Amino acid sequence: MKKIIVASNNEHKIKEIKEILSRFPFEVLSLKEANINIDVEETGSTFMDNAVIKASEIYKIADRNMVLADDSGLVVEVLNGAPGVFSARFAGEHGNTKANNDKLLYLLIGEKEERRKAKFICAMVLIVDEDTMVKVQGEVEGIITAEFSGEEGFGYDPLFFVKEFNKTFAQMTTDEKNSISHRGRALEKLKNELEKLI
Amino acid sequence: MKKIIVASNNEHKIKEIKEILSRFPFEVLSLKEANINIDVEETGSTFMDNAVIKASEIYKIADRNMVLADDSGLVVEVLNGAPGVFSARFAGEHGNTKANNDKLLYLLIGEKEERRKAKFICAMVLIVDEDTMVKVQGEVEGIITAEFSGEEGFGYDPLFFVKEFNKTFAQMTTDEKNSISHRGRALEKLKNELEKLI
Repeated sequence: MKKIIVASNNEHKIKEIKEILSRFPFEVLSLKEANINIDVEETGSTFMDNAVIKASEIYKIADRNMVLADDSGLVVEVLNGAPGVFSARFAGEHGNTKANNDKLLYLLIGEKEERRKAKFICAMVLIVDEDTMVKVQGEVEGIITAEFSGEEGFGYDPLFFVKEFNKTFAQMTTDEKNSISHRGRALEKLKNELEKLI
Repeated sequence: MKKIIVASNNEHKIKEIKEILSRFPFEVLSLKEANINIDVEETGSTFMDNAVIKASEIYKIADRNMVLADDSGLVVEVLNGAPGVFSARFAGEHGNTKANNDKLLYLLIGEKEERRKAKFICAMVLIVDEDTMVKVQGEVEGIITAEFSGEEGFGYDPLFFVKEFNKTFAQMTTDEKNSISHRGRALEKLKNELEKLI
């Protein structure tokens, strides 16, 4: 069975990707499972830039297996796209979810719903071989709430409210979230592209 | 006469700021003219973050003079706010205007006018003394053209078309540009704030 190495060490991300690709005839491996230990600096100015950088760096040492990399983040319209590619380090320190969420709430104090519109975006790159790179992007629209709700998910999920479900991402089950999430939608697009290739 | 040290080594910026503040009873000095040689890393995730970082670092060594810092950039709606705080290094290398403009054009190939909307944004911070920091933000809306027009200005100016003037920023005289530019508008707001303080 062909292997896809997922270029991430984020357990939540890998779990989501494995679940969504589980119906596919590929063995999905995390970096750890592929015995790859690499720290790629995300120096790009767009999500797609970063996904391409990550996939390319890892493909170099991936023993001709396929490599799937994504870069995701939150984009808030009235903040001119922030936190954007800085989503994981919005408050300065990488991965400090509490500080990132607090900064977001602070910047939106007093704003009405109309001005709390946001999008989660996921740029995804699959390197199939040296000549084939598939790029897709998934998005989901939401509203940044003024209070935290829910315990599931990670990152900005407790503040990201989706009208369709009347829930934040953190209040959804994994299945609910996968069905509409930016990563879910990017993976759906990727599946369509893969079916054309196979 | 009180001194304002402008936290920049960009000659174009300093010229614009001096011209707009010339009617004010302050001596406006560039970093060079103030004999300050410092390189502040712009690590913020928003324009305002960066302006505050710059102003604060320079104020520490500014001998109790006022410090004015700004951070500006281009925000393109369909690119989720990119190039944003990466405006000067969108194509990787800092200050490579040609590469930055080419990347912007490339990302918008085939897009209709409706999807070429952009904003120039200028976040500006004046540190008056240890207890007083004034923050303002100016914006101007435009359309990213598919071809370069004009020789004035700098950066993305030849691609930034303003309907009101039927010209790109690079086709405007300095006075025309100052009258509507993001930096001009931020400075107008700053003037209003200064008048309250004096």
